[in-house]
Amino acid sequence: MDVPSTALFTDRYELTMLQAALRSGTADRRSVFEVFTRRLPEGRRYGVVAGTGRVLDAVENFRFDSGVLDFLAAQRIVDEPTLAWLADYRFRGDIWGYPEGEVYFPGSPILRVEGTFAEAVLLETVILSILNHDSAVAAAASRMAVAAGDRPLIEMGARRTHELAAVAASRAAYVGGFTSTSDLAAGFRYSIPTVGTSAHAFTLLHDSERDAFTAQVDSLGGGTTLLVDTYDVTEAVRTAVEIAGPELGAVRIDSGDLLLLAHRVRQQLDDLGAAKTKIVVTSDLDEYAIASLAAAPVDAYGVGTQLVTGSGHPTCSMVYKLVARADEAGPDAPLRAVAKKSMGGKTSIGGRKWAARRPDADGVAEAEVVGTGPVPAELADHRLITELVRGGEVVAREPLDAARDRHAAARAGLPLSATQLSRGEPVLPTEYL
Amino acid sequence: MDVPSTALFTDRYELTMLQAALRSGTADRRSVFEVFTRRLPEGRRYGVVAGTGRVLDAVENFRFDSGVLDFLAAQRIVDEPTLAWLADYRFRGDIWGYPEGEVYFPGSPILRVEGTFAEAVLLETVILSILNHDSAVAAAASRMAVAAGDRPLIEMGARRTHELAAVAASRAAYVGGFTSTSDLAAGFRYSIPTVGTSAHAFTLLHDSERDAFTAQVDSLGGGTTLLVDTYDVTEAVRTAVEIAGPELGAVRIDSGDLLLLAHRVRQQLDDLGAAKTKIVVTSDLDEYAIASLAAAPVDAYGVGTQLVTGSGHPTCSMVYKLVARADEAGPDAPLRAVAKKSMGGKTSIGGRKWAARRPDADGVAEAEVVGTGPVPAELADHRLITELVRGGEVVAREPLDAARDRHAAARAGLPLSATQLSRGEPVLPTEYL
Repeated sequence: MDVPSTALFTDRYELTMLQAALRSGTADRRSVFEVFTRRLPEGRRYGVVAGTGRVLDAVENFRFDSGVLDFLAAQRIVDEPTLAWLADYRFRGDIWGYPEGEVYFPGSPILRVEGTFAEAVLLETVILSILNHDSAVAAAASRMAVAAGDRPLIEMGARRTHELAAVAASRAAYVGGFTSTSDLAAGFRYSIPTVGTSAHAFTLLHDSERDAFTAQVDSLGGGTTLLVDTYDVTEAVRTAVEIAGPELGAVRIDSGDLLLLAHRVRQQLDDLGAAKTKIVVTSDLDEYAIASLAAAPVDAYGVGTQLVTGSGHPTCSMVYKLVARADEAGPDAPLRAVAKKSMGGKTSIGGRKWAARRPDADGVAEAEVVGTGPVPAELADHRLITELVRGGEVVAREPLDAARDRHAAARAGLPLSATQLSRGEPVLPTEYL
Repeated sequence: MDVPSTALFTDRYELTMLQAALRSGTADRRSVFEVFTRRLPEGRRYGVVAGTGRVLDAVENFRFDSGVLDFLAAQRIVDEPTLAWLADYRFRGDIWGYPEGEVYFPGSPILRVEGTFAEAVLLETVILSILNHDSAVAAAASRMAVAAGDRPLIEMGARRTHELAAVAASRAAYVGGFTSTSDLAAGFRYSIPTVGTSAHAFTLLHDSERDAFTAQVDSLGGGTTLLVDTYDVTEAVRTAVEIAGPELGAVRIDSGDLLLLAHRVRQQLDDLGAAKTKIVVTSDLDEYAIASLAAAPVDAYGVGTQLVTGSGHPTCSMVYKLVARADEAGPDAPLRAVAKKSMGGKTSIGGRKWAARRPDADGVAEAEVVGTGPVPAELADHRLITELVRGGEVVAREPLDAARDRHAAARAGLPLSATQLSRGEPVLPTEYL
């Protein structure tokens, strides 16, 4: 919490590389770094870009204030000339990338950072932290949103992840298609709608379940959601409707065989005249459990653990690689493509890239096309990369709903097999031109 | 970053339960909440308590300042009487728990929060966020530390997780046995030693690998670590020793067959007279990969993704449950054990608990004993729960090294099979008295 800026969300080697480059005279060589991933998590059909808005905030706040500089000096992490350089640092380069909410595939140039080597290399760690975390959560959220169809999804995973990762996870989940969150900090920071029910502790605090329900309805009104699985579900539902009347907002079931219970509780509610009372289910749900409840009379899903941990894939494998750089300092020096070449498998393709999603005759996406030369005319209208930062100034701020809407549209433009939950290959091939 | 206190790292229902309890007159009933887990992640032999120090900070900073209260009022999350109550809130109760670094098992009462229902229920989300995240990372770190033996472990996973989760992950990794971190924010916040090497981008920035190595050695000295796998490893090692001399600190290998390369590079370094130059390996390591390199001439391991994502288990399943409460308000009202009782499987054992680790005749732990009555005399010296907060004041602050040392000692006191990496049952049974 008390890290004074985003500048320390940085691996030490970024600063020592800077120091060495300042000394060797290469620090001001114009450089292009790209963020991409060599593969999707096993079995996944598409990735979801999330965190771009947070990246823009982080770049703006990436300043070496006196607290940071004092620390670097005291720890002798870099020398005096480097400290002086850092004191004046702000990013003055350009950033382009896939807009937030867009889908991506192996090799998609998700983000491109262009500036001097010195100014661009420093951003590596914080950019990857944000994109790798947020995109992992958004990908899981997107699959859950597909499984849930029109039913709302409530993010309630704060207790299962780091307290600030939770806030970012709520944001990413919203981009991926979630409706609301239990996390008040996410409501505060990102204006995501917050919702809540109650816990077993509230029932246990009272002398009877009846007392607890009465207390909750008295205070929060009949539209509240009552938790009905502390003792006996059938008895709890009867008591709930007795106390709140048929206008009771919802009941929540948090344990047991949700499929069976949902049917039974729906029948009971209908019999009691509470036909409009909704059923919310929670309890270690993931996209498969959500899909298995598609035919059950469930009105909303609350999802925690599996959402904030990326449903088996808690991080993406995005990397930040130098793909081109000039041979000398200065903004006009020509760029040369560069790439690691050893035998280890971690090779990459050099050169500053464009990307386009080629549609077939019916307008359905059929390939992710990535290239380093000129963009073919027939792909010009299908380009994916937009300008985010120009000369250090953020030019692409947008409300979170824009990213959420963009994701829904991007997913809808993929072949139908994209939304199968079963394991498979990426739904689009990546072609290199 | 700009969430004004820890008070919003809270699920909305904590506040609405508070409101309903204030209205029903049950808010001041003395209550005992316990944190525990029903199971370890599949195959794991023990858990590691981490984050306790962060919990103490979070409890101290859990205040509803005007920014928070304005938000809650504007969003109509709670009513006026509740807002007034929150404005005066600070936790004035008691917290006991397993000290940080201690190991735990299913059912271990890891933390106990005692106070009025109102003051204790509010802390649920933030306490679970911290313990679930940090303990997951520490458990992975501990297994890696076992696999690494005496060789140092460098935490370098910041880019693979949320930027602030990364700082907490560094801290938890240090508790679990890691030696240092690449994350400057973790160095700043927790004084964990920071280290760094360099990236492929630094080599690619220069006109040749020779230029890059020269730049690095000129600036950072011959004790630096040179990255040797950008082009050809054998050639890079030769160049590295040529430039830095036999006093070269270390070389880093970040791709390829690490076992083969480590042997080959060691031989080459020795042949070049650089017998003291160390070999650092990095590249998607986990505890199994580390163990597989035990016989290789490796001097240090850098670990990223698998560490910060808990090596397959990115969160623990710790819960925060009301286990006892009074029937009326007041500090002296007797407590009654309570527990959820429905058929869903999520049942728990009521009552305020003690815990002890029973040693066998040789002093090796043989059981985790948890009870609700008096502590048997023969277990009195083996109790696990210590006082952390008394009447709202933190009484158990300690340096991070104390937790790190405690973990090493606790792990050493377990049966030998605890440190097998293979999947198995918890190494100690939990007995309930």
